[in-house]
Amino acid sequence: MRAHVEEHHPDLQAVLDHLVSSGGKRVRPVVALLTGIMLGADPERLITLAASIEMLHTATLVHDDLIDGALLRRGIPTVNAQWSPAATVLTGDYIFARAAELAAQTDSVPVMRAFAETLATVVNGEITQLFTSRGLSSRENYYQRIYAKTASMFVLAAKAAALISPVDGDIVEAMRVYGYEVGMAFQVVDDILDFTGEQAQVGKPVASDLRQGLVTLPAIYYQEANPDDEDMQAVLRGEYHNESRLNRLVEAIRQSGAIQLAMEEARRFVARGREAIVALPESPERDALLELGDYIVDRNI
Amino acid sequence: MRAHVEEHHPDLQAVLDHLVSSGGKRVRPVVALLTGIMLGADPERLITLAASIEMLHTATLVHDDLIDGALLRRGIPTVNAQWSPAATVLTGDYIFARAAELAAQTDSVPVMRAFAETLATVVNGEITQLFTSRGLSSRENYYQRIYAKTASMFVLAAKAAALISPVDGDIVEAMRVYGYEVGMAFQVVDDILDFTGEQAQVGKPVASDLRQGLVTLPAIYYQEANPDDEDMQAVLRGEYHNESRLNRLVEAIRQSGAIQLAMEEARRFVARGREAIVALPESPERDALLELGDYIVDRNI
Repeated sequence: MRAHVEEHHPDLQAVLDHLVSSGGKRVRPVVALLTGIMLGADPERLITLAASIEMLHTATLVHDDLIDGALLRRGIPTVNAQWSPAATVLTGDYIFARAAELAAQTDSVPVMRAFAETLATVVNGEITQLFTSRGLSSRENYYQRIYAKTASMFVLAAKAAALISPVDGDIVEAMRVYGYEVGMAFQVVDDILDFTGEQAQVGKPVASDLRQGLVTLPAIYYQEANPDDEDMQAVLRGEYHNESRLNRLVEAIRQSGAIQLAMEEARRFVARGREAIVALPESPERDALLELGDYIVDRNI
Repeated sequence: MRAHVEEHHPDLQAVLDHLVSSGGKRVRPVVALLTGIMLGADPERLITLAASIEMLHTATLVHDDLIDGALLRRGIPTVNAQWSPAATVLTGDYIFARAAELAAQTDSVPVMRAFAETLATVVNGEITQLFTSRGLSSRENYYQRIYAKTASMFVLAAKAAALISPVDGDIVEAMRVYGYEVGMAFQVVDDILDFTGEQAQVGKPVASDLRQGLVTLPAIYYQEANPDDEDMQAVLRGEYHNESRLNRLVEAIRQSGAIQLAMEEARRFVARGREAIVALPESPERDALLELGDYIVDRNI
């Protein structure tokens, strides 16, 4: 990634360095790398693919933070907190372009197609969220949202790595399922941590979604168990700007069984992901992919 | 293009219909289609490619208008004039994604690479313009800008159509040169029309670039012939907000020989573009590409 973002406009260089240094967990490229090594992909193409996926993810985050007006990501200021909206839009576009260049360098048309489809899925999900998702306590809507936002990119990571490997279609399909299930689990846990984490740890305000009217799995479970909670009702009516009522609601959700129920849901996703690949030949990478599920649910950041 | 933007989110559908209907001259897909038919490309792939290029162009316009705060494009309201910045960013992203999907459907890795490189060139040009191009009266900087902004996309149209055709590398190179020269001419003429056109005709305010401190070829020629014009000096110092002084300057440029000099420059670009393809076997499409140069310099919109 660093090699690919060098020698451009100095201001752009500064913000790219900032983004590349800001880290994150790099789970998506890890999934791609483990899958590709396990399945015998060419290392050079595989690394290019992994970098492409992480940059695509980074580009969507840059535009996402602009749209949400988020000021912190991973505990450090977002691009839009420091730059103008114009520069932020263009920075995101530039990272898209670089990600697309890397994807093209895999020399695989199926990878390019998967890449473009994933981008369309992610953006379509953001548009749907922008227009229709506030105040909706629907599990179906929630699963659609987190597929578009997160699991689709995990599918890309696992599937594209299989596509550049010398394997049959049923292995590609197994990896797609793995990516889907593990990606869904990852976002469910992210949404749990949004409630249970501390601001300093997660790097953004606690319950930041609910404070924007977005109802995630812990809140859905809470709403199902407490259909008469008036503060929850208010959020569902679109009234999510009263901070003291929101703080009470967040605390109630944190103390309720909803967190545990959501965590069990995440573990079920992980179990299905493991199931999809457990019959593959034993290898250190397969075992790492199996263990990645535990990391995903047990992490606290 | 219409077939490819159907059946999505209704609000998004409305804005996509709006964009697809808003027309424009469709010069880039015309270059791709004429090139591909002339060189024997498969019609289905060629049409996909042409749609992909026009959608890539449209996506960059959507973000461009957001960045410039432009309220009119082709005489009708821009997306950002009607929608929030968030929706505008996502609409542009969505059209990028659809363009990338179409490009991937050409099943050509070289086309995908050219597509991704062009996107990087366009965005890098916009970033450079955003940070450094105000008040610069430099021909070199101007040519770099219009290559990034316009000619790069004409290069993509001509070159990618050749890449999916059964032809040798020297023909691909001839088409690249054609795309470059004709694309440069196209933008020079656009910049002339920005001065000579009427708002109702061009669909945006007269001298809209100069009013943002952007110095294009007519202004550069004027500045060379009138180095002591105080209003021009003011623009070069970054003082381009005094409307009456700007109106006087625009009128002076319109009445000067600068327009004619810029037009002669455009004709030289076109002549080099024709030169690149004149030795190709005679065909109706080759003749149309030769004539396209005249259309480009003689148009008044």
